[in-house]
Amino acid sequence: MLAEIITIGDELLIGQVVDTNSAWMAEQLNSHGIQVHQITSISDSREHILKTLDEATKRADLILMTGGLGPTKDDITKQTLCSYFNTELVFNQEAYDNVSRIFTLRNIPVTELNRMQAMVPMACSVLNNANGTAPGMWFEKNGKIYVSMPGVPFEMKSILTEQVLPRLSGKSKLILLHRTILTEGVGESFLAAKIENWEDNLPAFIKLAYLPQPGLVRLRLSAAGTDRALLQKAIEKAEKELIPLAGEYIYGHDEETFPQIIGDLLRESKMTLSTAESCTGGQIAHMITGIPGSSDYFKGSVVAYSNEIKEKILGVKPETLLAFGAVSGETASEMADGARKLMNTDFAVAVSGIAGPTGGTLEKSVGTTWIAISSPSGTIARKFLFGEHRGRNMQRASISALSLLRKEIIKINKPN
Amino acid sequence: MLAEIITIGDELLIGQVVDTNSAWMAEQLNSHGIQVHQITSISDSREHILKTLDEATKRADLILMTGGLGPTKDDITKQTLCSYFNTELVFNQEAYDNVSRIFTLRNIPVTELNRMQAMVPMACSVLNNANGTAPGMWFEKNGKIYVSMPGVPFEMKSILTEQVLPRLSGKSKLILLHRTILTEGVGESFLAAKIENWEDNLPAFIKLAYLPQPGLVRLRLSAAGTDRALLQKAIEKAEKELIPLAGEYIYGHDEETFPQIIGDLLRESKMTLSTAESCTGGQIAHMITGIPGSSDYFKGSVVAYSNEIKEKILGVKPETLLAFGAVSGETASEMADGARKLMNTDFAVAVSGIAGPTGGTLEKSVGTTWIAISSPSGTIARKFLFGEHRGRNMQRASISALSLLRKEIIKINKPN
Repeated sequence: MLAEIITIGDELLIGQVVDTNSAWMAEQLNSHGIQVHQITSISDSREHILKTLDEATKRADLILMTGGLGPTKDDITKQTLCSYFNTELVFNQEAYDNVSRIFTLRNIPVTELNRMQAMVPMACSVLNNANGTAPGMWFEKNGKIYVSMPGVPFEMKSILTEQVLPRLSGKSKLILLHRTILTEGVGESFLAAKIENWEDNLPAFIKLAYLPQPGLVRLRLSAAGTDRALLQKAIEKAEKELIPLAGEYIYGHDEETFPQIIGDLLRESKMTLSTAESCTGGQIAHMITGIPGSSDYFKGSVVAYSNEIKEKILGVKPETLLAFGAVSGETASEMADGARKLMNTDFAVAVSGIAGPTGGTLEKSVGTTWIAISSPSGTIARKFLFGEHRGRNMQRASISALSLLRKEIIKINKPN
Repeated sequence: MLAEIITIGDELLIGQVVDTNSAWMAEQLNSHGIQVHQITSISDSREHILKTLDEATKRADLILMTGGLGPTKDDITKQTLCSYFNTELVFNQEAYDNVSRIFTLRNIPVTELNRMQAMVPMACSVLNNANGTAPGMWFEKNGKIYVSMPGVPFEMKSILTEQVLPRLSGKSKLILLHRTILTEGVGESFLAAKIENWEDNLPAFIKLAYLPQPGLVRLRLSAAGTDRALLQKAIEKAEKELIPLAGEYIYGHDEETFPQIIGDLLRESKMTLSTAESCTGGQIAHMITGIPGSSDYFKGSVVAYSNEIKEKILGVKPETLLAFGAVSGETASEMADGARKLMNTDFAVAVSGIAGPTGGTLEKSVGTTWIAISSPSGTIARKFLFGEHRGRNMQRASISALSLLRKEIIKINKPN
C-alpha cells in the first residue's frame, strides 16, 4: 500500500506556515507498514486541488489531505471534494453534535459559520474531530482511499490516530523497520570515515542515512521486507557492530531526546538537577521541563543574564568576573556551584557564552561558550567554539551542556 | 515568473525531518515577486527525481531543489542532475578551495569524501556555499532555470540569499504584497463574525486568510498586481478599516513577535524586565533572550519549579502556598513581586499553572494557569483555562503572559 500526502493552503506556498503535518503523518503511516511516496503542497485553488488529486490517484492507493476545512471563506476543500466525488453537501447530525459540544465546553453559542461545518459531502463517512469543529472525511473510489482532515495539527492528529489508522490497520503486508542511532560530538564526514567498512558490509535490504542537526548526527537504518523477525535481527546485528566503531558518540536511539534521557537517569538514581544559564537564556530549563513529570528531579533555574544577578543570586565572586570575565571557565564553574548550593540539588549545569551577533572580542569571538557541571564529585568546565549565528549557538550550547551532563550523571552512578 | 520547490530526501517521506526549507524559500521568492505554485517532497530515488523534474518543468519557470548533496552514499542528487542535463562531473577548483577553507577553519585535514564534493556537473555554474562543503548548482535549459542546493537549512539559506536571489532580481514584473495583522485573545470564528462585513467589502484583488496558532489568530491580506502604489494603498485602507472592529485584539504586524515588540517597548522606555516561571519552565526567558540585544532590558529569570525555590529565592510566603496553593493569583503575584525586587527590574512577569498531563485536581484542572505582572503601578493577576496538552499549555501560557505584559508596559508609558 502506497500513500501520498497533499497539504492544502496558500499559507504554505507563501511561506507563512511550515508544513509540520506531513512529517508527523508519514511517521504514523510508516509504523503501519504504509510507505509515503510523495508529499505535495498546493494552494487553496479548486483547479489545483482537482489536478493534484488526479495525479496522486495514478501513483498511490491512499491519499491523505489536510487543510482548507476551516469555517472561513478562504477554505474550499470541502466544496472541491464534492465536485471530485460528484456528490453534494448534506447536514450531518453527528458532526453538528460535535460542534455543539465544543461550543458548550467553551460556554458560548454556536455561530452560523460553525453550524455550516456540520454540512458534509453525502458520499463520505464522517470522521469525528474530538479537538475541533471541522469533521474529517473518508471517501472510497475505484479501490482507492481518500481522507480529508483539518490543517490544525492538533485536530488532524487526533483524527488520524483515533479514526484513520484503525481503519487502515492490516491493509498493508509490508514491514518497514527503522532504527535511528543518535550521536553527538562528531561531524558527519568523520563519522562516515570511521564507519565506512561497516556501512559497505550492511545487507542490501538495509539502507543507511545520515541526518545532521545542530551539534548532532543521527544515523538511520531502514529495512524493508515481509519477515519482521529477520529484519529485526539484521538491524540489531548492524547496530551491535557499530558500537565498537562509534560507541563513544552514541547517546540514544530513535525518538529519544537529551531531556528525556537525562530525566530517566536522574529518576533512576533519585538525584536532582538545577541550571544556571546566561547565554542560553532559559532554553535548557525549557527543554528539561518539556518532559512530563520533570518536577520529580528538576528544581529550578536561575537565568542570570546580567552580571549583577550572577553575583547577587548565584554568588559568583566580583573578583572572578573582573579577572576572567563572564565568559570563562571560572565564572561558569562558580555559577554551577552557586546554583547547586542555592537550589540544593545533586547536579547543576551552567552555561556562559557569547551568543551573538554582537559582543565578540579579539580574544573571545562570538560563539565562545563555557559549560560547567557541578556534581557530588566536583566541578568540571569545558570550552566550546560554536559559530556566528545566535539561535544556532544557543541551540548547540544547550545540546552540548545536556550531553556533558549526561556523561557526568553516568560517571557518578556507574563509576566503571 | 512561477516557481516550484522540490525537496529531496527519504527522511522527509518517513517523517523523520520536517521540511522547513520550503516555507523559508517561498517567503524569499514572494518578496521578489515570484509565486510558488507547488512544493513537492520526494525520496532519494533517481527515477523519482527525474520524473518530478519533468513534471515541474511543464508547470514552472524556476525550479529550486534542496537535498541529496551530502558527502555520504545515500545522497544522489548531483549524479541524477548529470543525467537530467546530459553532462558529467568535473573537478572545480573554486569549490575545492571552499571545502579546503572550511576544513582549515576547523583545523582538520580534508577527507576524501569531502574532496569529492568539489566534483560538479560541467553544465552548471557553481554557487559558493559559505557555510558548508556542498556547492550549490545553477542550470539553464530551454529558458527554464534549475537550482540545486544542500538540504541543511543554514547552508541553503546563505546560498539562496547571496547567490540565487541576486541572479533572479528583476526577472519578475508581478508585485505580490502581503500584510499580516496579528491578533491575540480572540477565537477564529468570533473574529470572523466581528469582521464579516469588512471582509465582504474587500476589493477583489485582495485575498484574506485566517491563520490560527496556539493563542493567536493571524489575518493575512494578500494583493497581487503590477501597480505597487495602488496595491499598497488598498492594503493600508483595508487595515485602517479593520482597527475599529478588532483593534483591541491587534498586537502587531507581519513577522513581528511578542518578544520583539516587548523588547522595543522596553528599550524605548528604558525599562527592565525579569521573569519568575513555574509551569512555563523558562520558556518565556528563552523567548525573550532569542532577540539579539535583549541584555539591554532583560536581567534574568528564576525558574521556580519546586515550592522550596518559590519560597527561598522568590520570597513567596509559606502561608500563601499553604492557603492558596502554588497555582493561585496570590502565589503568582508574590512570585512576580519577588522577582521584581530580587532582580531590581521595572517589570516582572510570573506564571504558575498546571501544564499537565497530570497534576490536575477537581478544583484546579490541567490547564489552569495564573499569570501576574508586577510593575511600578502595582501587581495584577489573571486566571486562564487552557487545555489538556502540556506543550500547548506551556506555549499558550507564555504567549498570554507576554500579551498581558505588553498591555501593562503600554499602560504605564502611555497612560491614555
